[in-house]
Amino acid sequence: MGREILLAHGSGGRLSHELVEKSFLKFFHNPILEKLGDSATFELSGKVAFTTDSYVVTPLFFPGGDIGKLAVCGTVNDLAMAGAMPLYLSASFIIEEGLSIYDLERIIASMKAAAEEAGVAVVAGDTKVVNHGSADKLFITTSGVGLIAPGVDISPDNARPSNWVIVSGTMGDHGLAIMSQREGLSFSRTLQSDCAPLNYLVAEMLQECHLNCLRDPTRGGLANSLNEIAKQSGVGIEIEEELIPVRDEVRGASELLGLDPLYLANEGKLIAVVEDEAAVGLLERMKGQRYGQEAAIIGRVRSKRPGQVVLKTPYGSSRILDMLSGELLPRIC
Amino acid sequence: MGREILLAHGSGGRLSHELVEKSFLKFFHNPILEKLGDSATFELSGKVAFTTDSYVVTPLFFPGGDIGKLAVCGTVNDLAMAGAMPLYLSASFIIEEGLSIYDLERIIASMKAAAEEAGVAVVAGDTKVVNHGSADKLFITTSGVGLIAPGVDISPDNARPSNWVIVSGTMGDHGLAIMSQREGLSFSRTLQSDCAPLNYLVAEMLQECHLNCLRDPTRGGLANSLNEIAKQSGVGIEIEEELIPVRDEVRGASELLGLDPLYLANEGKLIAVVEDEAAVGLLERMKGQRYGQEAAIIGRVRSKRPGQVVLKTPYGSSRILDMLSGELLPRIC
Repeated sequence: MGREILLAHGSGGRLSHELVEKSFLKFFHNPILEKLGDSATFELSGKVAFTTDSYVVTPLFFPGGDIGKLAVCGTVNDLAMAGAMPLYLSASFIIEEGLSIYDLERIIASMKAAAEEAGVAVVAGDTKVVNHGSADKLFITTSGVGLIAPGVDISPDNARPSNWVIVSGTMGDHGLAIMSQREGLSFSRTLQSDCAPLNYLVAEMLQECHLNCLRDPTRGGLANSLNEIAKQSGVGIEIEEELIPVRDEVRGASELLGLDPLYLANEGKLIAVVEDEAAVGLLERMKGQRYGQEAAIIGRVRSKRPGQVVLKTPYGSSRILDMLSGELLPRIC
Repeated sequence: MGREILLAHGSGGRLSHELVEKSFLKFFHNPILEKLGDSATFELSGKVAFTTDSYVVTPLFFPGGDIGKLAVCGTVNDLAMAGAMPLYLSASFIIEEGLSIYDLERIIASMKAAAEEAGVAVVAGDTKVVNHGSADKLFITTSGVGLIAPGVDISPDNARPSNWVIVSGTMGDHGLAIMSQREGLSFSRTLQSDCAPLNYLVAEMLQECHLNCLRDPTRGGLANSLNEIAKQSGVGIEIEEELIPVRDEVRGASELLGLDPLYLANEGKLIAVVEDEAAVGLLERMKGQRYGQEAAIIGRVRSKRPGQVVLKTPYGSSRILDMLSGELLPRIC
C-alpha cells in the first residue's frame, strides 16, 4: 500500500480489501465487524435509539480532538441525548484521493480510543474514494444504535413551566478552538475543543432523577438548542447570563473575533431540563462526574413567551436570544 | 428559501430548520422522524442487521435512477443480504453550496419512492453544507436497521462444496448505464441502471429454502463478490460463462469500451449460494418475482482451488476470475 489514498482504494477490489484489513480492522477489531458481511448482526431487545451525523470539520486535526474523535463522540452523544446507552456504531468514510494514509490511521486510532472510552463497538463501515478536488480531504458519517432503559422518556417536547435548565459545563469551547486554529490566533494553544462522550454522564444523571429534555448544543450552540426546546415544547425559557459558564479565554477570544459564545458549537456538553425539586440534587451528582464538573443551573422554563428564549443580563435588562440565522462558522463539525 | 443551497442551510439555525421542514419532512413524514430529537426511537426485538454506505455517484441523475434511489436501495439491499427485513433508514446529506434545491428535492422524492417500495421509513437524518469546491454537488450516506427472522443464518463464510451459485438477473447494467451516460454514448438511452430494492425477493427466497450466502454484486461486480465468498468460505467457485445472463446491449457496449461485464457494478441483483437439492425449486420461485425474472444458475462451489473463482468458457477452456485490482470506474455508486 502506498502512503497516499488512491482511487483504487475505493474500487471494492484488492486495494479496498487491503485498506479495510490493514487500516480499519487493525484498529476496530471485533467479532461482528470481522465477519465482513453486507450487514453487521447482533441481538437487541427493547426501545432502540438510532441516529446519524456527517462530519465535515476543517481542519481535520484541532486542539482537543480531530474529525474521528468528533464523529464518534457526536453520534454517541446524540444517542445519549435520547437517554440511550450507545452500543454499536457504523462509520462511513468519503476520502479525497491523495489523503495521506498516515493521517487516516491517526484519525482511525482516535476513533478507536473514543469508542473505547464510550464503551461502543464500530461494527459496520464503508469507504468511498473520490477524485482530487471532489471532496475536501475526508468526510466521516457515523450512525449509532443504542438501548433506552424502560421508563426513560426524554424528548425535546417534554419541557414544562417551572422546570429548571442545567448545562453540564462551559459553553463555546469547541467552536472557538476550531475558529482560533483556522485563524492561526496565538492564544489558540490554551483553547481546546471539549469533544467528549457524554453517555456515562447521562447514565449517572438517570440514576438521580427523571430527565424531561436533554440536548447537546452543537451547531448553533446553547441559543439554538434552547430555542428548539422552547419551540417543540411550546414553552418560554428564561436564562441568566451571569449563570452561564464560559471560560475566560473563550470570552476574551470571542470578543476579539466578534462571536457570541452562546451561539458557538459544543461537542462535549449537554443541556438538561428537569423538574424543579430534582435540580439541586442532579447538579451535585453531575459535578461528581468527569464531564460535569462545571455543571450549572442557568435558568427556568416559563409559561409566558412560548417558543422564545429570554436572556436576563446582570444589569437587570433582558433580550430575546433568537435562533441563529445565517451561518456563523461553516464546517465546525 | 432561495433556489440554491447556501452555507447557512447547514448552520443548524433558521435556514437549516426551513430546509428540514420544507424539503425533508415534506417527503419523509412519519411520526418517528417528526419528533426531531437527537435520535429516532422505536421498539425492536430479535436479531438485528445494521449497515451503512456512502454514495458519491456521478452524475447525480442517470438512466434508471439517481443518487437518492441508489442510496435507499443500496442500504436496503445490504440488509436484505443478511436475510433481514429492512425497517428503518437514516440519511445524511453532505451538500456543496450552490446545489439547486429543485435537484435536491427531486432526489429526496426519489428516495421517498424507493423507501415506500421497500417498505422502510427514513427516521433520522442530518445535513451538512460545505463551501463551493469542497465537495462535488451531493454525497448521501444511508444507514439501515432490519430484523432477521429466527433460523436465518446467511453469511459469506457459509458456502460449502457442491452448493449451487444463482444470480437473480443480468450482470453489469448499472455500471454500464453510468459509464455510457458519462461518456455521452448514443446507445445509452437503451441502457438502464438496474437499481432496485431486493428485500421482497429475498423474503420470497427464504420461504422456499435455507440460503447459505447472499451478496449483492455492487463495486467490482460479480467477479469481486464471488471472490469474497470463495475466500471467506475457503472454497473454490466454478462458473460457466455462457450461463451468466448479460444483456446484448451491455455486452456490445462493454466490448466497445473495453470493459468486462463481470466486473461491472449491479445495484438490483444478488448472488445466492444454496444447497444443491434446493437450487432448482429456488430458481423457479425467483423467476416468479419482479426482480428475479431473469434469474439463472451459473455454477457450483468446489473443494478444489479454495479461495479462487474459475470461469469456464464455452470453448472448453477456463481461466481464473481474479479480484479487481486497480480502479475500473470511480464513483459508480
